[in-house]
Amino acid sequence: MSLIEDLNWRHAVKAYDSTKKVSQDKIDKIVEAARLAPTSSGLQPFKVLVVENQDLKERLVEGALNPECMRDCSHVIVFAAWDTYTEERIDKVYDFTTDERGLPRGRFGSYTDKLKSIYLNQPAEANFAHTARQTYIALGLALAQAAELKVDTTPAEGFDNSVVDDVLELSKYGLKSVSLMYVGYADSQNDWIAPMKKVRIPKEEFVIELK
Amino acid sequence: MSLIEDLNWRHAVKAYDSTKKVSQDKIDKIVEAARLAPTSSGLQPFKVLVVENQDLKERLVEGALNPECMRDCSHVIVFAAWDTYTEERIDKVYDFTTDERGLPRGRFGSYTDKLKSIYLNQPAEANFAHTARQTYIALGLALAQAAELKVDTTPAEGFDNSVVDDVLELSKYGLKSVSLMYVGYADSQNDWIAPMKKVRIPKEEFVIELK
Repeated sequence: MSLIEDLNWRHAVKAYDSTKKVSQDKIDKIVEAARLAPTSSGLQPFKVLVVENQDLKERLVEGALNPECMRDCSHVIVFAAWDTYTEERIDKVYDFTTDERGLPRGRFGSYTDKLKSIYLNQPAEANFAHTARQTYIALGLALAQAAELKVDTTPAEGFDNSVVDDVLELSKYGLKSVSLMYVGYADSQNDWIAPMKKVRIPKEEFVIELK
Repeated sequence: MSLIEDLNWRHAVKAYDSTKKVSQDKIDKIVEAARLAPTSSGLQPFKVLVVENQDLKERLVEGALNPECMRDCSHVIVFAAWDTYTEERIDKVYDFTTDERGLPRGRFGSYTDKLKSIYLNQPAEANFAHTARQTYIALGLALAQAAELKVDTTPAEGFDNSVVDDVLELSKYGLKSVSLMYVGYADSQNDWIAPMKKVRIPKEEFVIELK
């Protein structure tokens, strides 16, 4: 199936069948799509946490808008972004990149100097606003990858970030939670949105063509 | 090809062949992938502008970090988000959704009331921060769709938003620019990054598994 067919196939599932687990192989592919996401300057300023542990999921329920999805889904993927940019973090990514490419470290030094002059001179809050945006590219690709595999998902923003950050101890990684993605197989009896037509803004309203 | 193969195939092209145009059919598919992107509460708080007009592209060069890409690519897709959430905008989307589904308007009234109680009580800046995030989901899917079609792209954030907003008169639509996506076919002689290895953070650093 094409990407467009996969995107038409998927919807944000409202109820999961707690007896059905997603295989590790499929989870690996979903994570891989997120890992391959392009990011600003290639910095990949985020990680994903894959929560399969039921006790942890129960502790995350407190902060969730859709507690049944949290409990009943197979895995919760948490997108968590760097709390800020630092010199060390930027250098680590670019040192790894040059090493992998067989180039001398510092090959992109003038570029990373420019990045540092921007990011190290603005508050952590502004940097986090930027790192958080990047996670959405990966979220979109992870949702598309799950659809390709016919795995159900629900992207979720509406949750108490402080609960997620605390339960998963994100501060120790220098991360803050941005979004959740429930992964599993729908409970078709209770997934009330499944029979409804998928609706998007009509193309003629969505796009402005300047020829 | 699978999504993962497509993501491995693509890279952020650094030089375009100005003699090669992308067909309207392919542009339509790229826009369609963006249109199908999931967004927070289904509000789709953005539009895309597809700029093919060379005079407009020349006027956008002033604000671009990569002026040659702007000039030589086939099309520039501009992701532009709502400058804020308003009651009218939220109602318009939900009225359209209920009409399309054959449901009475107001069927999701308690939900939209909740959205309004959040968004109408925070400053436009905070709302734009949220609408802008949503565009990145669509950006990721549009990049993936182009890769499926073997069309080259470059996602770009580093540009002068005020130039883009002014040249495209985005304020008259209630929009502000967020990102650009250059679309075309690479000039393989000058696309210096093409021979370099694609590098991503290793999986074991990217993912934290909590089983």
